[in-house]
Amino acid sequence: MATTTLPLLPAEATPAQWRAAFRAGAARPTSGLAPGHTQANLVCLPREYAYDLLLFAQRNPKPCPLLEVTEPGSWSPALAAGADLRTDLPGYRVWQNGLLVATPRDVFDVWRNDLVSFLIGCSFSFETLLQQAGVPLRHVEQDVTVPMYVTNRECVPAGRFRGPLVVSMRPIPAASVAKAAAITALMPAVHGAPVHVGAPEALGIRDLDKPDFGQTVKLADGDVPVFWACGVTSQTAVMQAAPSFAITHEPGHMFLTDARDLEYRVA
Amino acid sequence: MATTTLPLLPAEATPAQWRAAFRAGAARPTSGLAPGHTQANLVCLPREYAYDLLLFAQRNPKPCPLLEVTEPGSWSPALAAGADLRTDLPGYRVWQNGLLVATPRDVFDVWRNDLVSFLIGCSFSFETLLQQAGVPLRHVEQDVTVPMYVTNRECVPAGRFRGPLVVSMRPIPAASVAKAAAITALMPAVHGAPVHVGAPEALGIRDLDKPDFGQTVKLADGDVPVFWACGVTSQTAVMQAAPSFAITHEPGHMFLTDARDLEYRVA
Repeated sequence: MATTTLPLLPAEATPAQWRAAFRAGAARPTSGLAPGHTQANLVCLPREYAYDLLLFAQRNPKPCPLLEVTEPGSWSPALAAGADLRTDLPGYRVWQNGLLVATPRDVFDVWRNDLVSFLIGCSFSFETLLQQAGVPLRHVEQDVTVPMYVTNRECVPAGRFRGPLVVSMRPIPAASVAKAAAITALMPAVHGAPVHVGAPEALGIRDLDKPDFGQTVKLADGDVPVFWACGVTSQTAVMQAAPSFAITHEPGHMFLTDARDLEYRVA
Repeated sequence: MATTTLPLLPAEATPAQWRAAFRAGAARPTSGLAPGHTQANLVCLPREYAYDLLLFAQRNPKPCPLLEVTEPGSWSPALAAGADLRTDLPGYRVWQNGLLVATPRDVFDVWRNDLVSFLIGCSFSFETLLQQAGVPLRHVEQDVTVPMYVTNRECVPAGRFRGPLVVSMRPIPAASVAKAAAITALMPAVHGAPVHVGAPEALGIRDLDKPDFGQTVKLADGDVPVFWACGVTSQTAVMQAAPSFAITHEPGHMFLTDARDLEYRVA
């Protein structure tokens, strides 16, 4: 998918300004945009599949924290005043029977009145807080997408949805691991505390240099690989179930809500 | 409902021992039993209503924190090995079209294969931790049921389910309010931080001495009324919707899981 920037809009523009830009046709990854505001994964499914995904999320809250679930057919989320889920993301994926059939800039024409939209928490929310606390983010320093790995842990299945836990990995200096764990633990709505620290082989990850999604990130001397549950888990489960129809966001091209990251910190 | 105790079973018996006693016909309120283990509210609904309640809980996580949702017809919860939800609670309520029709000791005979069971977190879980931290619990000192109030705040509706937020109130010494808030904030799966501190009139509560559920508790000098979201919210919403059939626990007669309260503390 081609990426276009709107040069007149600074990263610090509001979520509403960015949504309007995307609606007008702009397209770019959303990492770093409207800092301090919560970004979300999007999964839209026909109502007949919605109970199973809602239950899958309830049973697997660390990889699949639900921020909002809309009424069938509604494209107007409570988390973003005036937003339109059909047009306000910078990129979409359209699926039929588990196959990717299109990557459009909007889904206005393929929208259906039986679609339930799931907005799922994203680790971008805690990355801002980690940086503010002085925890370095190696994938940001190296300007790569955070690496993600399919693990040997199975999620708790629900109806048609099942699949492995997918994790993201951030190299963290050994002296900062406890701080990173404590900060993220307070944000259960955006994946919460790490699920695993060190020992990638115990998760079934043979080679950190070969992520299943995202890009390789180099560990600095004294870094420990720290693993967080990842929202890609839900998309993997949905795609394996091959629903008749689905819409998701283009990876890295999230929905910008008006909510603030700090609203999801429990203390 | 008559209350019987099994004199040979101490309060400190395990959850499994208590479940077996209830299965054998014992009946008593569960406050203080198997301390340190998580107790849960029970709502069983036909599958046709389950999506709406699952969505209601997602939209109102503070009053309705879901600990587990079973498969339709299953009476065997993952949170308690070998348990039977039809027999292992000390008291049940059976509802038809929103009317209470029976308060049996078990629901073996009225069980249906389309029933989905919702186990909902209970503030008993954080009360143990408050006590251990030296925060006095006036309703325990005065040996009354915690008072609960219907507020003027509406929950976010979902399908057939809607209704007011119900809160429990604990008088807390002014110097301990911050500590009580911090401790409970770390337990979002069992109602989390208070929703309101002081100023009952702002919640639409006119007289603290007239709770809508539970019993009146006296404030000591210097106590502040502190309000937490309450699981009764979900039962109120379910009863107002008048589903064709429902089973709930008898108030105060909860399901004892094998999970430990501390498993629900995020940090």
